[in-house]
This record gives sequence, structure tokens and C-alpha cells, in this order.
Amino acid sequence: MNDEDRLARMEARIAELEDRLAIYQLFATYGPGVDSLSGDAVRDLWAEDGTYETEHHVFRGADEVSAIVRDPMHLRYIERGCAHVMSMPRILLDGDTASATGYSRVYVHREGEWVVDRASANRWELARIDGAWKVTRRVNKLLKGTPEARAVMGQDL
Amino acid sequence: MNDEDRLARMEARIAELEDRLAIYQLFATYGPGVDSLSGDAVRDLWAEDGTYETEHHVFRGADEVSAIVRDPMHLRYIERGCAHVMSMPRILLDGDTASATGYSRVYVHREGEWVVDRASANRWELARIDGAWKVTRRVNKLLKGTPEARAVMGQDL
Amino acid sequence: MNDEDRLARMEARIAELEDRLAIYQLFATYGPGVDSLSGDAVRDLWAEDGTYETEHHVFRGADEVSAIVRDPMHLRYIERGCAHVMSMPRILLDGDTASATGYSRVYVHREGEWVVDRASANRWELARIDGAWKVTRRVNKLLKGTPEARAVMGQDL
Repeated sequence: MNDEDRLARMEARIAELEDRLAIYQLFATYGPGVDSLSGDAVRDLWAEDGTYETEHHVFRGADEVSAIVRDPMHLRYIERGCAHVMSMPRILLDGDTASATGYSRVYVHREGEWVVDRASANRWELARIDGAWKVTRRVNKLLKGTPEARAVMGQDL
Repeated sequence: MNDEDRLARMEARIAELEDRLAIYQLFATYGPGVDSLSGDAVRDLWAEDGTYETEHHVFRGADEVSAIVRDPMHLRYIERGCAHVMSMPRILLDGDTASATGYSRVYVHREGEWVVDRASANRWELARIDGAWKVTRRVNKLLKGTPEARAVMGQDL
Repeated sequence: MNDEDRLARMEARIAELEDRLAIYQLFATYGPGVDSLSGDAVRDLWAEDGTYETEHHVFRGADEVSAIVRDPMHLRYIERGCAHVMSMPRILLDGDTASATGYSRVYVHREGEWVVDRASANRWELARIDGAWKVTRRVNKLLKGTPEARAVMGQDL
């Protein structure tokens, strides 16, 4: 390997590491965003036309997704005290797109304890847009024993 | 430092970062593996002769470990809806072997909430085998106030 | 870009990645430290004059912080069986200082299950001291629906 090839190989490896850490950071931003009612921070995570699909609703576009922070159900969580916690995701990188699989849990305060009101399987599709990783699709299925939720967890294995 | 030394030093630092992220990815794969009943994905995480030691049983070898996904207790979890979530581990690298310490929790669905049916101390031993990190030993102790579980959490500090 | 600039740029990128992983490792060390009663390991995470601020108390200095492992409330957790689990943090690096935002949860064993006795918003301030990242300040607010806790989650967004 000549020097140019060697340097280019190193730069590619560094870039992949940076991509993985940027995607971790995206996941670590979602919870603080929704739990502090920071709609702008949530909007900034999604691609302009990205979606968020739950069992009951499909949020279409970054504006609709970010409006979750004003949703009555979300505001009831906020009033009681809540934590939207993401697990460390499994990431598959493919150039300028990626997918990530992981768990989300919503802890809600009740009588001095916190109960898990939602525990879900999540698969995220991501794309590098203008140099930043953005969510193009998030699929969220409650872990209630359905084959649909199991399929989400197993899709990329 | 001459150029060769400088490049070699950078490559070693990149390789260490890659090792750490590969081990994170291994931890982020375990839960989706067992919760989607993907025995093959679980088997692939373990070394051929790796073990998984709980308080009541020692699973010996990747085949036995991967058979957990067909275990009656596991299938009851699956039927109700469950999430096997690993915390971000503390990792000690030592060339081609490593150890990692962290928490595991099994959330199980019950009447619209998820209860933590197991919370455990875990210490994992890992080895690089044919270029991929594999589990050679996992020790899991329920966090019920025993000195054994505390010893697992403190072993590598 | 000449070769020297190119190499220096790569080294800076590697150093940033190392910083992020070192901070992850710090977070992954805190729980094992307190849950194994390893006061020395906890002390080592804090700057000599670093603080830990909860709603009811400010611990001042690494010695006071590490003494948490001998606190009666902590020892009651330990006796029952507990897990202090940190979420993957959102990290903002700024040279030799950094801040990190994330969730902490204390799971405590009760009648064969683990309940979440504390779920908190955390913002950590960190500094590189003698080459190692140390906590200079940790602010912890229970997520009980207060604007103070929401402010902690949103401060760095």
C-alpha cells in the first residue's frame, strides 16, 4: 500500500467511527428534546419529509414529529414527570444511509416511583443530509408480545 | 517520531476505537437477538466454547446459549412482551481479549405497563476470534443484595 | 492540504473520538462504582473540587462524593439490591471541557421485581485534568414534573 492509499484508508475508518458516534449522539438527543419540550431540537433530528410510525398514527414530516411535544398525551407525561430513554442502538452503516435498532422506554412518575408506561421496539432509518445524520423513518411497536414488534427487533439481524 | 511511527501510532488508536465500538455493537445486538427469537444471531455473538453463567445454570457453548430463545421461561416472556436491555458497558481492552461490565434488565409487559422481572450485574469476557469479537464467558448475577452480585460489578474497577 | 496538515487533522479527529469514548466510559464506571461500594473508583471520577448537586444536598469535593457509598440511604439500597444505570449521554465537547446530559435511574429490588425508585435528569460538567476526564459538576433533578428538571434536560440543546 502506498502512502496515499494508507492515508485514505485511515480517513475512511475515522469517518465511519465519526458516523457511528454521530448516530449515538442523535439517539442521546431525542429524549432530552422531548422531555424538555424542545420542539426545535426534535425537528432538527428528522429529515424534512421523515416519518415516525407508531401503532396508531403516522407522523409525516419533521414539523408533525416535532409537534409531539405539544400533544396532550405527551403533556400529561410531562406534568407527572417522565423520561424517554433510548437504549444504545445496533447500527448498520451503508455509506450515506444507515439503520439502527433499539429499545425505547417511557418512565412516568407515580407516587414516588417511576413506572414504564411504554416499552417499544424501534427501527430507525437514517440518511446523511447536508453532512448531518437525520431520521428518515422511525418505526415504533409496543412490546406486547406481537409478532410485529418481534419483526422490528429482528429485521436487521 | 518519524512518519512511519506516526502513522502506525494513528492506526493503533483507530483500531482501539474500532474495538470499543464493535463491543458496543455486540451488546446492542444481544437484546434484539433474544427478543426476536433469532437463535442464529445470538449464537454468532458467542465463541464456539463460550459460556453463560447464571445463578442456576451454566450454558456451555454457543449452541446451548443460543437455545435460550427456545427455553420455556424465555418463551413466556416473549408471549407477554419483553425487552432485554443492556446498559452501555465499561470496557477494559487488552489486545485480543477484553472484559466488559454492565447491567442487564428484562422488562416484561403486564397490564399495560412493563415491570422489571430481572435486573442483573454482568461481567463479560471477550476475545477477538478470526477478526470478530466474541463472548467467551458471561457471568450474570441478579441484583438482590448479595455480595456475589456486588463482586461482579466491582471486579474490574 | 499538505501532508503535515493532513496528518494533524486526522490526529485531531482521532483525539475527539477518544474523548467521546472516554466520557462514555466514565458514565459506564459510575454505576459499577457505587453499586459495588467502591468509593475509590467513584472518587477517581471526580475532580478534586468537583460537586454533585441533588435537590436536597450539595456534595462538595471528590471525597464527599465518594462517601455516598457509605450513606445510610445508599446502604439500604445496597442491602435490598440496586442498579444505578446511566443512559448514553449527549456530549458537547469544547477542547478541555465538556458537558453531558442524560438520564439516571436507580432500580431497587422488591419482592422479586425491581422498581425505579429514582429517575433523574442529569447534566454533567467535565474537564480534562492531567490527561483524564473528570467530573467538575453533576446536577441531578428528580423527574417529577418540575420545570427545574426540564431545564436540566434542555440546557444544552
